[in-house]
This record gives sequence, C-alpha cells and structure tokens, in this order.
Amino acid sequence: MMKISIDAMGGDNAPKAQVEAAQKAAQTYSDLEITLVGNEEEIKKYLIKEERISILHTTEKIEDTDQPTTAVRRKKDSSMVLAVREVKEGRADATISAGNTGALMTAGLLHVGRIKGIDRPALSPMLPTLNGKGFLLLDVGANMDAKPQHLVQYAIMGHTYMQMVRNVRQPRVGLLNVGTENGKGNELTKETFSLLENANINFVGNIEARDLLNGVADVVVSDGFSGNLVLKSIEGTAGALFSIMKKELTSSLFSKMAAAVLKPRFRKIKNQMSYSQYGGAGLYGLKAPVIKAHGSSDETAVFHAIRQAYEMVDQQVVTIIKSEVAKSVNEE
Amino acid sequence: MMKISIDAMGGDNAPKAQVEAAQKAAQTYSDLEITLVGNEEEIKKYLIKEERISILHTTEKIEDTDQPTTAVRRKKDSSMVLAVREVKEGRADATISAGNTGALMTAGLLHVGRIKGIDRPALSPMLPTLNGKGFLLLDVGANMDAKPQHLVQYAIMGHTYMQMVRNVRQPRVGLLNVGTENGKGNELTKETFSLLENANINFVGNIEARDLLNGVADVVVSDGFSGNLVLKSIEGTAGALFSIMKKELTSSLFSKMAAAVLKPRFRKIKNQMSYSQYGGAGLYGLKAPVIKAHGSSDETAVFHAIRQAYEMVDQQVVTIIKSEVAKSVNEE
Repeated sequence: MMKISIDAMGGDNAPKAQVEAAQKAAQTYSDLEITLVGNEEEIKKYLIKEERISILHTTEKIEDTDQPTTAVRRKKDSSMVLAVREVKEGRADATISAGNTGALMTAGLLHVGRIKGIDRPALSPMLPTLNGKGFLLLDVGANMDAKPQHLVQYAIMGHTYMQMVRNVRQPRVGLLNVGTENGKGNELTKETFSLLENANINFVGNIEARDLLNGVADVVVSDGFSGNLVLKSIEGTAGALFSIMKKELTSSLFSKMAAAVLKPRFRKIKNQMSYSQYGGAGLYGLKAPVIKAHGSSDETAVFHAIRQAYEMVDQQVVTIIKSEVAKSVNEE
Repeated sequence: MMKISIDAMGGDNAPKAQVEAAQKAAQTYSDLEITLVGNEEEIKKYLIKEERISILHTTEKIEDTDQPTTAVRRKKDSSMVLAVREVKEGRADATISAGNTGALMTAGLLHVGRIKGIDRPALSPMLPTLNGKGFLLLDVGANMDAKPQHLVQYAIMGHTYMQMVRNVRQPRVGLLNVGTENGKGNELTKETFSLLENANINFVGNIEARDLLNGVADVVVSDGFSGNLVLKSIEGTAGALFSIMKKELTSSLFSKMAAAVLKPRFRKIKNQMSYSQYGGAGLYGLKAPVIKAHGSSDETAVFHAIRQAYEMVDQQVVTIIKSEVAKSVNEE
C-alpha cells in the first residue's frame, strides 16, 4: 500500500479541489491510501467516498502572506507542516501542498531532508510547449545563487525524472542561456557548460529563452533566479496577450460574434498553454517526493499532482536519483 | 547642423530600409545631415532625394554570424566600423546600425568609448506594455556579470533617458526581481536594492517579471544575463502564441471566416506588442548615442531609431548623464 499525505487547506480552491482530487485518485489507484490534513469539518463537506482516505484534523494554517521560515517554525500544527511530517515519520511516502511555496520548501528541507550528494533541492515545474509534451525547468526559485555543481545535480535529477515518470527514453538536457553557441553567457553558465559536457547525460547544449516553448529540450537547468524570471515572463506574457485579446475581440458586436465562433479554439489554446495537466512543481533532491501544486489549482491540477507523486514513488525516482548522484561523484 | 551616420548594410532589410528611413528623417528634421555608410551602388538604388544625405562608400561588411571582437578588429573598412568611426572622428554626433549586436557593442566601446563614471555600458531596448507607453530595460546583454554599482549607473542613465527623450516627468525606476517584497532575490539584487534606495532617483522597488507588460515601471534595471532571458522569453512567448493562434484559427473554413473578420484586431494586437515604434536599443553609457536597431527592422523601425538618436543629441542626454553620474559619485 502506498501512502500520500495532502495539505487539504493550501491554495485558492482548498479544501474542495483537494478532497475531490483525493477521491478521484483513490478510485484510480487501488493501492493508494491518502491522508487529508486540515479542518475535518470543512473537509467532510466534500468527502463522499471515504475508502482509503483518512483525515488528520487541525485548524492551524500557513497563509500565503506568511514569512516562510517563521511560519514553518511557529505554526507547528499547520496543515502543511503536519502533512510534511507524515513523510518524516514514515506514515506517508510523499506529500502535496498548493499552499505557500517558500514555506513548503522550508518544511521539506527541514522535515524530509536532502538526498546525500544533492547540495540544494530544486523547485521544478513542467512548462508547456507547442507540441504538447512540455519540458521540466529546474530551478525556479529554491536556490537563488546556484553554483555550477548544483546545476549538474539538477541535470541528473531532471534526466531521471523525465525518464522514469514522463517516459522520455533519452531526455535532452539543455542549459538556459543567452545564446546557443558555446562560450556564451555569464560566469555560471560558462563553467556549468563544460561540467555538463562531461556528465553522464544527454546534454544538448545551450538553450535560448525564446526557443523554450518550441520543445527544444526535455529538461532545462538554470539558477533559481533566472528560472523564476523566465517562468514568470512566460506566464505574464501569455496572460497579457489573452487579456488584450479578450478586450479587443469583444469591443464591437460584430467582432464579439466572430469571437464567439472562435471561443472553443481560444479555450483549446489556453489549455495548451496551461500546465495543470503536467502536475505540480516537484521539490527534487529531497528524500521523498514533495510536490507544490499551483496556488490556483483546481481538482484536475491537484489530481495530476497526486498522480505525479504516485508515479515518483512507484518508479522509485528518489532511489534512482540517489544512485545516479553517487555514480557521478565516483566518476570524478 | 546635427549629423548622424548610419550603417546602411546591417540588418535583414538593408540597405532599402536604411535608405528610405534616412530620406524620411532628412525631410522630417531640417537641421539633420545623414551619412549612409555602405555599398554606393546598392544604396543609390533606393536614394531618390539626396538633400542632406551623403554616402560613404565601402564594400566590406560584418555578418551576423561573425565573431564580434574579431570582426571589429579585422574588418576595419566594414560599413559598421566606418559608421562608428564617423562619431569617433567628430564627423557625426550619433550612429545607428541594425547589424551584429555584439560587434556594435565592441565597436562602440572601442571607438566611441565610455562616459567617465560609467563602468559598463548597457544595451537597452524599450519593451511594449499594455498601456502603449512601454518601459526601458537595462541591460539586455552588454554586461553579463553585473555588479550592484553597475545597476545603479543603469538606473541613472535610464532615468535621464526617459525624462529627456520620452518626456516622462518622474520616471519610476524598478529592479527586476523574483518577488516584490524587500529582501527577495539573489545576492546581486539584495545589494542593489539598498543602493537604489539611497540613489537620487524615483526608485519604486522590486518588479516581478510577470508584471512587466502591465507598465508597473518606466525603467527596469537588471544584469545583462537576466535582462536578456526576460526579453527573449517575452518575444518567444508572444511569437509562439501568435503562431498557434494562426494555426488554430485557420483549421476549418468556418473558423477561417471568423478569423478573417477579426484580422484587423489581431494585427492591432500584434502591433501593440511590437517595439519597432519605440526605436532601437540604445547603448547607453557611451560618449555619444549608438543605437542598435532590431535586425529585422523595416523602414519605420529604422526611422524611429534615427528619431531616437536625433532626440538624444538634441536633448543632450549624454551630457546630462555625465553630470548626473558625477553628482552621484560626489554624494557618496
């Protein structure tokens, strides 16, 4: 029996999205037990099928506006901290939260801990590509001032994840950079480039930000500061374009009618650019899967985050990362 | 009489776009003389009105694929190097090229030189915002590993430019960062934040990449690596969205008809997101205006780059930057 704990109170649609997703997951995976951590009364409003779902009751909650390290230290009985502690104390194999990202990173590091050989965990979402396959970006903000060896560790983790969970046979690993030619970039990327060339992965070289959505790599590594900027630039630009399109296309009755005809297609484009289907952002490098679902996650997005955690446990991703990292250290 | 030299051979639409833009500019500004540098025979194909336009003939050219420093050193008679030398030798007040960006930065630094007090020039395009006003991003790639004091110098230069050329009375200067709260970011942004707080500018704090297109600042400073990633993420996302929209909207006769109705509106959106109207990217921090027009610049974009150079000379932007930088050094 596999066990996953879920912070039922984190995110904009909690606990409804969490409870409904948990029920769907328990029905999908017959070997899965779920612990929903949060306000029992609130949770029970949405809980219809209780099979293999239990509730760990608490009323404390970490808010999105809380300072992460302080909140994790002080709010010891919060739904997030208790969900993470389920993993620490061996009662769960993985955990999920759609709450405060910084707090989840802190709680994960503190209570689950790092894999030996990984200096810094990476926060890593799947981002959409035009071909629908997506790519894994590590790191988008766990480690702001990354060193070259950190990026090599990200490459190994991303490679393993894409192989084991997303079934990409030979994942193409790229380095986020300002040009595709060798020798481009800042001190960090220049040093990292030569390390990646010698690492035991399928390194495809530098990747420019403008090519990311074209699916030129399956895994893209970067320091957390740069990764975060790129993630938010993509989100912001897509959001801005959709909003001016909406304004422009509904500005007259005539164009409103034309836009209505095109609505299903616009929705399809928007869905294609959304990454709820890819699950949440993994905190890779910890001793167990810790998944950060997007704050605005609906039932589908939380379900895919559970599926992601399930497959990471099922495919023993953490164990494989451990051995790959150990190998890479021995090679040196 | 003001004099501007133009590399007539750089860019995808050279020399047509350059020659036509030069003619339009000479007609618009009666106190402007232009020197077109490049192949005389090619230039003359498009030159109808020669008033206040002269040609400096050369057949050598720097290609986009050339290694910048090598090209500038070896191709001494290239149209770009000769255009920049017009400034160096006092025969022009400013220069423009749509050619190899790295080569223009190298030639500018070598032949025009830095303003005293500016450690590193910044490459700085205006980027579009939803309100149509745009913002100036410094730096997008002249200085990959920037130090905090460089970003303060960018802030002063951007502030001056927006005031004098874009007529923004009290430009809001922001720091590109991964969150809006104080204390966010990497070592560079944390150190820079406190320096900017104490600088003699209207510092509005950290700016997140996702808010850039909403016009939350008039000037945004960043290291060249990060600025380049953000610029290309915005370009890449907008390009990708337009391409899938085109594909989706023309996939059936019915939607094709609806899309045809909406075409003028789509074009308006595309224009709104294009920055050709804002001119080129300035190489701020040099002793004279050196403007890098986009490689794909058409006549309009080159014209706006000329207008930008004209106004920078007219408003004595370089002189003001010099004195502002000197003031800020004295204050310390």
